[in-house]
Amino acid sequence: MTALARTLSCALILGQLCAPALRADEGMWTFDNVPVKQIQDRYGFTPTKEWLDHVRKASVRFNDGGSGSFISPTGLVLTNHHVARGQLQKVSTPQKDYVKDGFLAKTAAEELPCPDLELNVLASMEDVTARVRAAVKAGMSDKEALKAREAVIGKLEKESLDATGLRSDVVGLYQGGEYWLYRYQKYTDVRLVFAPEQQIAFYGGDPDNFTFPRHDLDMAIFRVYDKGQPVQHHEYLKWNPKGVATGELVFVSGHPGSTDRLDTLAQLEYMRDHGLPLRLSSLRRRLGVVKAYAARGPEEARQANATIFGLENSLKAIGGEHEGLKEPALLAKKAQDEAAFRKLVAGSPEWQKAYGQAWDELAAVEKKTLANRAQNFRRVGGFRLPGNALTLVRYGAEVAKADGERLAEFHSAGLESLRFRLLSPAPVYPALEEALLADGLKQSLEELGPKDPFIQLALGGKEPEALAHELITGTHLGDPAVRKQLLEGGPAAVAASQDPLLAWVRGLDSYLREQRTWQEEQLQSVEEAASEKIGRARFAAYGKAVNPDATFTLRLTYGTVSGYPCNGTQAPAKTTFYGLFDRAASFDFKGPFALPARYLERRDKLDLGTPLNFVSTCDIIGGNSGSPVLNRAGEIVGLIFDGNIESLVGRFVYDDTRNRAVAVHTAAMTEALLKLYDAEALVKELSEK
Amino acid sequence: MTALARTLSCALILGQLCAPALRADEGMWTFDNVPVKQIQDRYGFTPTKEWLDHVRKASVRFNDGGSGSFISPTGLVLTNHHVARGQLQKVSTPQKDYVKDGFLAKTAAEELPCPDLELNVLASMEDVTARVRAAVKAGMSDKEALKAREAVIGKLEKESLDATGLRSDVVGLYQGGEYWLYRYQKYTDVRLVFAPEQQIAFYGGDPDNFTFPRHDLDMAIFRVYDKGQPVQHHEYLKWNPKGVATGELVFVSGHPGSTDRLDTLAQLEYMRDHGLPLRLSSLRRRLGVVKAYAARGPEEARQANATIFGLENSLKAIGGEHEGLKEPALLAKKAQDEAAFRKLVAGSPEWQKAYGQAWDELAAVEKKTLANRAQNFRRVGGFRLPGNALTLVRYGAEVAKADGERLAEFHSAGLESLRFRLLSPAPVYPALEEALLADGLKQSLEELGPKDPFIQLALGGKEPEALAHELITGTHLGDPAVRKQLLEGGPAAVAASQDPLLAWVRGLDSYLREQRTWQEEQLQSVEEAASEKIGRARFAAYGKAVNPDATFTLRLTYGTVSGYPCNGTQAPAKTTFYGLFDRAASFDFKGPFALPARYLERRDKLDLGTPLNFVSTCDIIGGNSGSPVLNRAGEIVGLIFDGNIESLVGRFVYDDTRNRAVAVHTAAMTEALLKLYDAEALVKELSEK
Repeated sequence: MTALARTLSCALILGQLCAPALRADEGMWTFDNVPVKQIQDRYGFTPTKEWLDHVRKASVRFNDGGSGSFISPTGLVLTNHHVARGQLQKVSTPQKDYVKDGFLAKTAAEELPCPDLELNVLASMEDVTARVRAAVKAGMSDKEALKAREAVIGKLEKESLDATGLRSDVVGLYQGGEYWLYRYQKYTDVRLVFAPEQQIAFYGGDPDNFTFPRHDLDMAIFRVYDKGQPVQHHEYLKWNPKGVATGELVFVSGHPGSTDRLDTLAQLEYMRDHGLPLRLSSLRRRLGVVKAYAARGPEEARQANATIFGLENSLKAIGGEHEGLKEPALLAKKAQDEAAFRKLVAGSPEWQKAYGQAWDELAAVEKKTLANRAQNFRRVGGFRLPGNALTLVRYGAEVAKADGERLAEFHSAGLESLRFRLLSPAPVYPALEEALLADGLKQSLEELGPKDPFIQLALGGKEPEALAHELITGTHLGDPAVRKQLLEGGPAAVAASQDPLLAWVRGLDSYLREQRTWQEEQLQSVEEAASEKIGRARFAAYGKAVNPDATFTLRLTYGTVSGYPCNGTQAPAKTTFYGLFDRAASFDFKGPFALPARYLERRDKLDLGTPLNFVSTCDIIGGNSGSPVLNRAGEIVGLIFDGNIESLVGRFVYDDTRNRAVAVHTAAMTEALLKLYDAEALVKELSEK
Repeated sequence: MTALARTLSCALILGQLCAPALRADEGMWTFDNVPVKQIQDRYGFTPTKEWLDHVRKASVRFNDGGSGSFISPTGLVLTNHHVARGQLQKVSTPQKDYVKDGFLAKTAAEELPCPDLELNVLASMEDVTARVRAAVKAGMSDKEALKAREAVIGKLEKESLDATGLRSDVVGLYQGGEYWLYRYQKYTDVRLVFAPEQQIAFYGGDPDNFTFPRHDLDMAIFRVYDKGQPVQHHEYLKWNPKGVATGELVFVSGHPGSTDRLDTLAQLEYMRDHGLPLRLSSLRRRLGVVKAYAARGPEEARQANATIFGLENSLKAIGGEHEGLKEPALLAKKAQDEAAFRKLVAGSPEWQKAYGQAWDELAAVEKKTLANRAQNFRRVGGFRLPGNALTLVRYGAEVAKADGERLAEFHSAGLESLRFRLLSPAPVYPALEEALLADGLKQSLEELGPKDPFIQLALGGKEPEALAHELITGTHLGDPAVRKQLLEGGPAAVAASQDPLLAWVRGLDSYLREQRTWQEEQLQSVEEAASEKIGRARFAAYGKAVNPDATFTLRLTYGTVSGYPCNGTQAPAKTTFYGLFDRAASFDFKGPFALPARYLERRDKLDLGTPLNFVSTCDIIGGNSGSPVLNRAGEIVGLIFDGNIESLVGRFVYDDTRNRAVAVHTAAMTEALLKLYDAEALVKELSEK
């Protein structure tokens, strides 16, 4: 259908239905489709191709689940403390707790190598929609289509890897409306340069998490090495120590994890009534287990720290999303938008035939998912070791197959990253592993009952606690050398291993595979096919004016530094060091509101009016943590570390009146590095242009 | 019914219905019925009779609409800047704006006499329920009962005034469940000693009003004189310059204006759907007129300042109440409580016969009120002058009658206060008077239409603006000497006056009286009678465990200094000067967040960690402004100036999880007086024991 025809058919219905439901600064835009004209119209600034290419190449994906950016030509990369927290945990020991105490390398020699941190830089992007589409032939069943799609994706990735040597991922966008091949420069020699104390990085703790006004120095600096030398990365963001002012236009370049804005009403209702409550109760249960473990003693508390943070963080985020979904107005708006969209589709017999059934198909999938709720509890639970065991058991069998036939996580293009994670030298905490495995099995038993075939197979008549104890105390998989041996020994070595955990997982493998096949055939393939229909319908109706849901791939968002109405008054656009000391004194310097000693000792050195955190209307979500905030000049002026609590519902609907991205101000980072951390050399390195 | 029988009938229904719906620290208790045992049980502290008498006698009612307390034996009285604001406005001139710039009397001679400020101290309290009740004979109609009650109340007040010389008011409590005679020591020579700048007293302006965290130095100090000398008032609160800590037990002694916690569901629904929306729209309209007036120039802005504050304050408070009433959960809870109460009443044939119809009677009154909505617009509107004119027109006729026959505001016991207000030398702003009168008439015309008899009588065919201009430019009532002459000249002088405003009001008087009689007979008497039935039923069912709704009479409330959950995190129990500077810097020192120059110049003198404002669970509402916060020792540790925004719904339901009273901390007042205002002598006077 032509653009003109589209305009005409729009004009026949209500004006508001033509405009996609895009609100003000909404949008996590792929770099091939940045709404340059819209930015120009609204802000009088045009990001050029050079500007965009530069920003893209300076942006970094932290495969631990965050974002970052190059901030010097000497390989310095900035991210959040909470993105770095997993690595800080892994380099810490019972004697030295870098999570708690922070770290500063005074020389290159002191920089701390991270055990299993992989960084990616998006080197190039190629639209492969046509090739993916061509693999799916008319008349294929959903199941056959899924297989065909997986095969061609595996093939595309392998081709690209072979041709370029770059990590190559095919990414589905717009619910399958488009497929793109993203190629990444990959870095795995990453070393810690600086991290402040957790107490100031995560100031206010779980209470203040996801709120604003906020007072966090949530930063960490790494250096990327290549062949033993700091990488010469010429695409880096210049450090602007003055930061940004209220009212300024800013950009955020980062990797939002996932959103559900294009989901159907039935999908959101399922999430509200079943999906999120299930996740929340599981998270709460798991948090209880880990907190009980931490209560055993200070060393256990140290080991559990990053895990507790992660669980509490998820609970607060998903809890906020769930609260948002329960707002009747939200789903009412969704219902209205969807009705308009479906009416638009129904208006064209051609569209109606191709796409019109998709909503009902998705509703049916949700019903089926609910009916098979028990599937959620037929799984290898636990923490890191059981997952490692399953990877080892499957590795040999999978890599022997053609790429397109493999389970997706064993595609050639991702194998190197998978091995990197599998063989990580990061410490394993067996008692924590045991507690989590025991509780996972216990939960499965409670949910499924003792007669469930999976339970019978997994427990073999034993008690969950006894089995977990037996498996974890008996296994040697905690030793990376043992994992390496098994990996290199291939299927024969894995089959012959007497390791109890490996043997246990081996015994579950075929059951779990059957179940996965059932899920792919009965749920996933139907859902993907129906979603793709809706994605194509949306393209037909609205074009690319709607941005795709987040997929933990690079996106650009833009907005204004501005406060918002909050609790009867106005939240400011920024906080200052004054506010940090106020919050500390307000709570008598206790608990999550205590200050590290240096803040009290050196208070008088600080310019207390220095902006500390600030908010903008930029549209972000989890995964954006660590993203740089940029000004028009492409300089870094801030560091995203959170969304405000009002933004959590942004997973489903963006509302620019209250949705705000929270960032650390570069002026505060500079002030703290100089006056509190004696990191003059580091600031000098940042200041060199 | 005996106490035992009551317990038994309670035991027959659900336990929760027995316990009146009293939540934690809820309760604005009259001083004769302080829940001493409950305080002892909860806090291990027993306020003795001496403690209570002392606190009562140190407490002050500001008849401008607030509270205060004696804080020295030399007549110093502390209240809020915003309670003092009206007087500050009245002593200001185009040359000297004390509202804006603040004031400090360095010597007694410099203290500024207030034109029309009356302070009351509750000297004694006497239960007169039996005498009021005895005046209402069996078989009287509601209308006759109302008359009889008014007559006996007038008589009681007059008797008391004649016997003691003290201002004597009969107060209905528990919706007529009890009547008490309150006798007040009255002071009318009150002089201003200290007020800070409005910018810091009302820091954050309308946006921050009714919110927390807060940063206001909302204080003012007066001195009470008697016969030209500072009054020797031995019952005063000792100044505790250290103030109070988080978690401490505190008390508030003050004059909450009104609450509606004992109202019926039908009454609350009426307020939600009709009463409050009407008040809000009228307030908004009036605010628009006054703001337009203020925009004419700086002198007009100065004149309108206190009025704008008052209107914005009411709008935010009533707006918050309305939002609260719209919460479905609130009325659902009310419905549940009411159903339980009615069931309890219905369980006794005797109760059911005496009280059971009252709820339906009240619902009928609300319907009738709504049907006669037009009555709201048949009134003498405007500002101060039209009201003065009406008082003058009626005065002679009313005082000629027996006390019980008079309109209530002309009862003997209140006449002196009424004359004090009427003859106030405070400046009148004719152009503002004209603007408000014109708009009031315009609103009446719009609501009632040109054919309405009141409109025809009031406008006499003229345009509202033209009539207001004619009346206000022609009147001499702005001159207190003219008002005095008319008052002393009696009915003949008033009847003969050619003053156009007086003549206009004279022409409306009998119409307005007829209307008032209709309202009293058709609405007020029925409502009072039905409410009294409910009040008596509540006594019968629950005893005095429920505290009466607020009536701008002295109450004691108690609670704990503690933060609360707010916007996803925890609001602290207090703020500090750090927070003040943070909020200022966060908004770039602009607008309502600017700081007076001395705060910037003397910042380094301040201990920034000094507590500035704090919150407690004490149960307060408008009218409590200026109330002292006391510790167990009866020392003053804070100064109430607000409730948080979550407390506004407290008009209907108290919820101790989030309802907080906001106070200025004595440490901040001391710190500011010493280090910012050079008021050493004043602090010395406070510190002398």
